[in-house]
Amino acid sequence: MAKQKPRTLSGFMELLPGPQVRFEKIAELLRRTYSLYGFTPLDTPVIEASEVLLAKAGGETEKQIYRFNKGDSDLSLRFDLTVPLAKYVALHYADLSFPFRRFQIGKVYRGERAQRGRFREFYQADIDIIGDGRLDIANEAEIPSIIYQTFTALGLKRFQIRVNNRKVLSGFYAMLGLTDKSGDIMRVVDKLPKIGADKVRDLLTGEVLALSGEQADEILRFISITGCNNEVLSALEEYRGRHELFDTGLDELNTVVKYLGAFGVPEENFTVDLTIARGLDYYTGTVYETFMADHPEIGSICSGGRYDNLAEYYTDKQLPGVGISIGLTRLFYVLDEQGYLNDALNTSPADVLILPMTDDLSPAIALATRLRGAGIRTQLYTEQKKFKQKMSYADKLGVPYVLLLGEDEITQGKVSLKDMATGEQELLSVEEAVEKIRAAIRADANTAPIQEPGQD
Amino acid sequence: MAKQKPRTLSGFMELLPGPQVRFEKIAELLRRTYSLYGFTPLDTPVIEASEVLLAKAGGETEKQIYRFNKGDSDLSLRFDLTVPLAKYVALHYADLSFPFRRFQIGKVYRGERAQRGRFREFYQADIDIIGDGRLDIANEAEIPSIIYQTFTALGLKRFQIRVNNRKVLSGFYAMLGLTDKSGDIMRVVDKLPKIGADKVRDLLTGEVLALSGEQADEILRFISITGCNNEVLSALEEYRGRHELFDTGLDELNTVVKYLGAFGVPEENFTVDLTIARGLDYYTGTVYETFMADHPEIGSICSGGRYDNLAEYYTDKQLPGVGISIGLTRLFYVLDEQGYLNDALNTSPADVLILPMTDDLSPAIALATRLRGAGIRTQLYTEQKKFKQKMSYADKLGVPYVLLLGEDEITQGKVSLKDMATGEQELLSVEEAVEKIRAAIRADANTAPIQEPGQD
Repeated sequence: MAKQKPRTLSGFMELLPGPQVRFEKIAELLRRTYSLYGFTPLDTPVIEASEVLLAKAGGETEKQIYRFNKGDSDLSLRFDLTVPLAKYVALHYADLSFPFRRFQIGKVYRGERAQRGRFREFYQADIDIIGDGRLDIANEAEIPSIIYQTFTALGLKRFQIRVNNRKVLSGFYAMLGLTDKSGDIMRVVDKLPKIGADKVRDLLTGEVLALSGEQADEILRFISITGCNNEVLSALEEYRGRHELFDTGLDELNTVVKYLGAFGVPEENFTVDLTIARGLDYYTGTVYETFMADHPEIGSICSGGRYDNLAEYYTDKQLPGVGISIGLTRLFYVLDEQGYLNDALNTSPADVLILPMTDDLSPAIALATRLRGAGIRTQLYTEQKKFKQKMSYADKLGVPYVLLLGEDEITQGKVSLKDMATGEQELLSVEEAVEKIRAAIRADANTAPIQEPGQD
Repeated sequence: MAKQKPRTLSGFMELLPGPQVRFEKIAELLRRTYSLYGFTPLDTPVIEASEVLLAKAGGETEKQIYRFNKGDSDLSLRFDLTVPLAKYVALHYADLSFPFRRFQIGKVYRGERAQRGRFREFYQADIDIIGDGRLDIANEAEIPSIIYQTFTALGLKRFQIRVNNRKVLSGFYAMLGLTDKSGDIMRVVDKLPKIGADKVRDLLTGEVLALSGEQADEILRFISITGCNNEVLSALEEYRGRHELFDTGLDELNTVVKYLGAFGVPEENFTVDLTIARGLDYYTGTVYETFMADHPEIGSICSGGRYDNLAEYYTDKQLPGVGISIGLTRLFYVLDEQGYLNDALNTSPADVLILPMTDDLSPAIALATRLRGAGIRTQLYTEQKKFKQKMSYADKLGVPYVLLLGEDEITQGKVSLKDMATGEQELLSVEEAVEKIRAAIRADANTAPIQEPGQD
């Protein structure tokens, strides 16, 4: 028969078993952390009607969309999890309680040009808190604490959540009489870490924006306010009283910083950074970006912010919210590239592999059943192979323990447990073997999937 | 602004938060059970190149496929998890260890005619064990034990796994000199529960198959062999020695039944049923179907079997395997329809809701941080609403406990914990409150998501 060459599309991540187990552990830690904060899991369709999904989209995004017809239907694959959330909340409004806190970890699709580290199918992991009419500022302080807990649970330590407030920025630009241009200015300022202050000044005073040199200098002075959070907040106090929106934003920023300690976020992981604007008009209050301290070139690994109108394309209801998104597939790829994956994690499919040494498998099967009943992931190896081949299989699988069960062991009511790391083999009662394997499982449950290079 | 009416495509399940939590719990129990048996999780792309995905497909399936072009690429959405597995194993053959045991829970797409209870996007939950060249019969006995453990973990009790062996069937038809017609005969016999013995006889002796009345009677006599497993196996022994394939199949069936007890499957959940054939030529050994005892009309809720060539469209390598699939979305729908969902399960997004009664939220935030650190899913309610509205929110959320924190409690270093089921409110230390809430969490962890009607 002629064979079809098997292949996976470029831009689509397909992992081998070991890396997949690690990816699942990361996704599970995200689910667990989000759940600890009272977020409920959502799962929306991958396919939506195009006119619903693209009610807002346009430009670059629309070009990337996977859009097609099936029968009479014009369909599109979701390109993020925010638009489906907006649709969900507008559609199910009457059945939801607000604030509505949801997380969603799901695949999204963007037909980007294929290149290393860019994915056309990738997981996003989003959380959002949606209010009905209004939403308290305390939620904007809670979000960075969730980012902190999430990355800490994964094993990251040297990361920094950078926070700003769009009202502070807009208020500041209003002081300079630049309200109309503030959106464009922020988009330019957003490029500061990439292109530097001189180029930003050139762009600000250039033909398009046409700011005066004085205005540009004011802006550069403002966004160069740095220091610890209290220093930055103090410096901002000097602008107080000149514009109402600015003052509101500054109050919000003060509140967010004030509550952070109580939320358990250490100051070294959190900084007020006036250069953070997020390039979207969508955001109206606190905005977040998160950087790896040793790899700022990767860009933000978790971003988001406060918005005023989640679902304005679907409903007249005012639904303000605050949320963040992690590009999980890309993050996993980047962590792997940078050597951040923790080798100590058990990524084998089983905690123990049973090798039966008798023709009748009944005793080995009964043992497997007992171990599984004790919560131990147990694989029973039943192929008729040479002992050496069986041990080589165990080795390749990376299974931490092998359990040998021959006539001798069966007669004595014991098992031989081999520790694959040390090579040590012991004759134990089943209870003793269970205890030993469970201890290893407990240790592994506390092993983070990520470990920063140079740390133990 | 003109609004786009929000809607979800028909045939696409989109659950409200409570049902979604239950669905997640079911998926999590599946993942946990599959993992206990040493299966490794896989995740393959939803989109594949059409020529890869459709190497084998044809007829009805091909018509249902979501297929489209993006740029120069002819793409299709996966319609099951078996073809992607075949591609994966053929593609990554050199990196895998065999037997390769994987599970995958993922969405698949079929553009079926929309009707109640039929889904165009639905989850399948598959497990497969793939051998390289050969695969021991013991694996065929392990599969029903996984089905048993899975449904038991979900809370189902009255279900029956029906097992047959294609070699027994093919051998039997060979005895009658009907080998060439055996595939067609089996497809007819498969309809027995739906159309009855008389109609099956009519079809067998009809124009198309043209069997003699004697042959038809032999077949009907054969498939009417019933009784407990040992009775059926004894009756089959009477055919032994007349055809080699039959004898091999009978040996296999004997082995499967023999090991079941050791695998922990009670006889009432498992029966040898000679009418089960599975309508696919793909299967070559043991085949499985699973029925709800009180709702046989639903059809099989978990099916599969042994096959000889997983990836013949991609590789010359002989890759035999055995696997089963659960149509999770449809199962969830059916269980809901039949009143099988367990009301006792906590489907609220949190274990406790904290209502701060002070303007400064710091103490409430610190308390939330502490509870989350203790593994309690904690929602902090920070909206400025009347007390009655806050309690009504707690009620709608279905949260089991509300924790009130006012000046009095803060001064005393205590909290007021309200049990939402009983209405009882107690002044407790944080440790006492934590213990109380954790006890409820432990009880809920042992609450199955499914409960059969009339059981407690």
